[in-house]
Amino acid sequence: MPPAATLTKREKSGAYPLDEFLGDISGISVSADPIDRKRRSRDYFWYSPILYEQLKERVADLVVTPHDEAEVVRVAAACAAHRIPLTVRGGATGNYGQCVPLQGGVVLDMAALNGIAWQKAGLVRVQAGAKLYDIDAAARPNGFELRMHPSTKRSAQIGGFVAGGSGGVGSVTFGGMREPGNIVAARIVTVEPTPRVIELRGDAAQKISRAYGTTGIITALEMPLAPVQPWFDVIVAFEDFVECVRFAHTIAMADGIVKKLLSPVQWPVPQHFSAFRAYCPDGKSVLSAMIGQMSLESFETLLASTRGTVTYKAPSEDVLGKAPLYEHAWNHTTLQVLKNDRGVTYLQCLYPHDRLAEAVAQVGATFGDEVFQHLEFIRLNGYMTASGIPIVRYRSPERLYEIIAGYEACGVMIANPHVVTLEDGSRYKRVDADQLGFKHEVDPFGLLNPGKMRSFQPQTA
Amino acid sequence: MPPAATLTKREKSGAYPLDEFLGDISGISVSADPIDRKRRSRDYFWYSPILYEQLKERVADLVVTPHDEAEVVRVAAACAAHRIPLTVRGGATGNYGQCVPLQGGVVLDMAALNGIAWQKAGLVRVQAGAKLYDIDAAARPNGFELRMHPSTKRSAQIGGFVAGGSGGVGSVTFGGMREPGNIVAARIVTVEPTPRVIELRGDAAQKISRAYGTTGIITALEMPLAPVQPWFDVIVAFEDFVECVRFAHTIAMADGIVKKLLSPVQWPVPQHFSAFRAYCPDGKSVLSAMIGQMSLESFETLLASTRGTVTYKAPSEDVLGKAPLYEHAWNHTTLQVLKNDRGVTYLQCLYPHDRLAEAVAQVGATFGDEVFQHLEFIRLNGYMTASGIPIVRYRSPERLYEIIAGYEACGVMIANPHVVTLEDGSRYKRVDADQLGFKHEVDPFGLLNPGKMRSFQPQTA
Repeated sequence: MPPAATLTKREKSGAYPLDEFLGDISGISVSADPIDRKRRSRDYFWYSPILYEQLKERVADLVVTPHDEAEVVRVAAACAAHRIPLTVRGGATGNYGQCVPLQGGVVLDMAALNGIAWQKAGLVRVQAGAKLYDIDAAARPNGFELRMHPSTKRSAQIGGFVAGGSGGVGSVTFGGMREPGNIVAARIVTVEPTPRVIELRGDAAQKISRAYGTTGIITALEMPLAPVQPWFDVIVAFEDFVECVRFAHTIAMADGIVKKLLSPVQWPVPQHFSAFRAYCPDGKSVLSAMIGQMSLESFETLLASTRGTVTYKAPSEDVLGKAPLYEHAWNHTTLQVLKNDRGVTYLQCLYPHDRLAEAVAQVGATFGDEVFQHLEFIRLNGYMTASGIPIVRYRSPERLYEIIAGYEACGVMIANPHVVTLEDGSRYKRVDADQLGFKHEVDPFGLLNPGKMRSFQPQTA
Repeated sequence: MPPAATLTKREKSGAYPLDEFLGDISGISVSADPIDRKRRSRDYFWYSPILYEQLKERVADLVVTPHDEAEVVRVAAACAAHRIPLTVRGGATGNYGQCVPLQGGVVLDMAALNGIAWQKAGLVRVQAGAKLYDIDAAARPNGFELRMHPSTKRSAQIGGFVAGGSGGVGSVTFGGMREPGNIVAARIVTVEPTPRVIELRGDAAQKISRAYGTTGIITALEMPLAPVQPWFDVIVAFEDFVECVRFAHTIAMADGIVKKLLSPVQWPVPQHFSAFRAYCPDGKSVLSAMIGQMSLESFETLLASTRGTVTYKAPSEDVLGKAPLYEHAWNHTTLQVLKNDRGVTYLQCLYPHDRLAEAVAQVGATFGDEVFQHLEFIRLNGYMTASGIPIVRYRSPERLYEIIAGYEACGVMIANPHVVTLEDGSRYKRVDADQLGFKHEVDPFGLLNPGKMRSFQPQTA
């Protein structure tokens, strides 16, 4: 396991020239209130007991809230001039401390840059701080919706989703954000004494995807949309979890069945689905699904040859004040358990597409009650497969790493969510070469979210 | 190769009791005019010189045109009572004589049953004789379009497409008609002295899919629709055909790029694309594509790393009087060549999904100028792959069968389009067991399209 991050000398001394910085950004909203700084220096890293210990004390010196791109440019210039770390904060719904200021300095809260610049057929251009829920709500009257969103749609921002996430509800059809075509353009501000504003289009837009805000301050995004579909939330209960996974796989592979979510969850995890508990029979694993209304009959036709039972079927409503089914999928699944049981944590895995149910059975046989499986079907590189966010009974870091090794022995890849760096968290244990090279161009002093891209060494003193 | 069909004794004698039949159906439109009978006993089987010789003399004794389902029932009853073959005719755009009356008798022309019963979000219920073009045009104002259509969209009928086809433009996203979810329900009339009207829903609806009208007279269909997308027609020219295929495959596998057609066509076939000839440079193979407007930039981003050049890009217009790009794809590709060169024919093949470009290169090296390749990317059983409709220089039946064997030696499966029976034309050389069993229930005397399902033996005298 990687060593815990240690405080640098500078952090200990708190020696950033904050007064000079404040002089440079006069007129821009800034907070030095200790409670506010602490609150806005955190995300959902506490899902991981390991990260919790590493990150709980990390606090920004200042929280700055720009209201337009010009203010972002002024903040970037001031950070560059005074060599102050700058960590961008979106909705702070990440789970690996993507927006935690490891070395203090400035947290840049993007919440006020939340405008929608324009909508075209199937495309939207937004400021980075726009909430996913608001974008979706604005697109629907025009017949479009987000292609994908995390389970945190109601609080997450688009910039944070692109910078800190990978996919979500909708990825069963469109794949993750990394698939070509899922990010059309990004606009960034560099962190230099005289910051540049760069429009990244085509391939270039991927330079900011899942880089945790280390490769420029994203101020705007152009994202493709999907046509609105009449979705239904469906829960199907199965005695046997592997049968549940096999059925979900059948639906996943049926290209004539329109879907947005296929989330098999092993009992007893559904016991914690309070809003849907009545539809989760004791002892049964469930498939939570979002299915196009026109495909419901075909879905139930395929279900008829299994032992599964539909326990819930209703139009997908996304109205505030009522928990949607998608808040019981992706990493909200873990959250539902954590609400009742703080003794668990989770992993992130990728099942092999060509022996998916077999790998699920093998993992089940290997770990018994120590791990409860939860899959999310996704397209990846043109193939249908499933990622997984299992709930793990937490014993110790050492045991967690043994479980990771056990998964890998079953042919299931792990992207470790208990580490803070991009490299350690990636399936390939490295940062994208393009992103590393690009960082030298846009953040020569290494001030953006320092400590997250550990391969990076500033070339400029 | 299978033997040519031979005329039965009954056919030679022309001994059907037509007068009694006519007495039973009085008041229903019927034609005995020889020119009309000959015209309405044909489809596009003449693409195959082998089928042309076998089928050119097959003519119905009568052509009956029912105007509602009650008239269909009366015709079915009369055919059953008098043991007269009944062959259903849709738009007659098939290529294997699907609607040719091999044993004479009655041709049932469905053109007048062309109503649209209702539309819901993502679903439409239509009479079997409704034209695909008209269904699509009726759905568009409601925000929907056909999921898939053959290149003959402008003349084909939905009943014929389901009964005689397999997929088409749109199958690159939704797969073929056989994928679960692509036919919701079918209504059929049985051929018995007292015909029954049966609603087939769910799995059961597949009993009429690609059965050439042998398993009941389809009178209505309930079909799922896709949300309307703003499509663009795009032509990309490549020096090298294998590179063209590889690029198409890249786009096919990119789930973030919305597409409806990916059709790589080897030079010199595009020489015959008269309506688009100006965009098909001499010597270049082309990719004809339909791409969602919101994905055009991503499409061109991926193209930038190849040697391909966009030669045409314009909104997909489907207005009568102007040839659309899709009439240069699927089997219209063959037709465009046949307009100038009657010395060619075609095959139907399925490339292996996991060595697609390799198989294309191997086929190219094997046959040289005798075969020009043309692929259509499709989803099949959840995997992206490509079918192919190569243009073949025709020498003899024997040589054609050698070419088929050569394809199979390259690992490319052939569904032979030069045979009249369901079994010979299938990739597995057999009829679906469900369909064979079902035929006994709905057509006990074997009167529906006799000769097309050769495994079938009536149990009733």
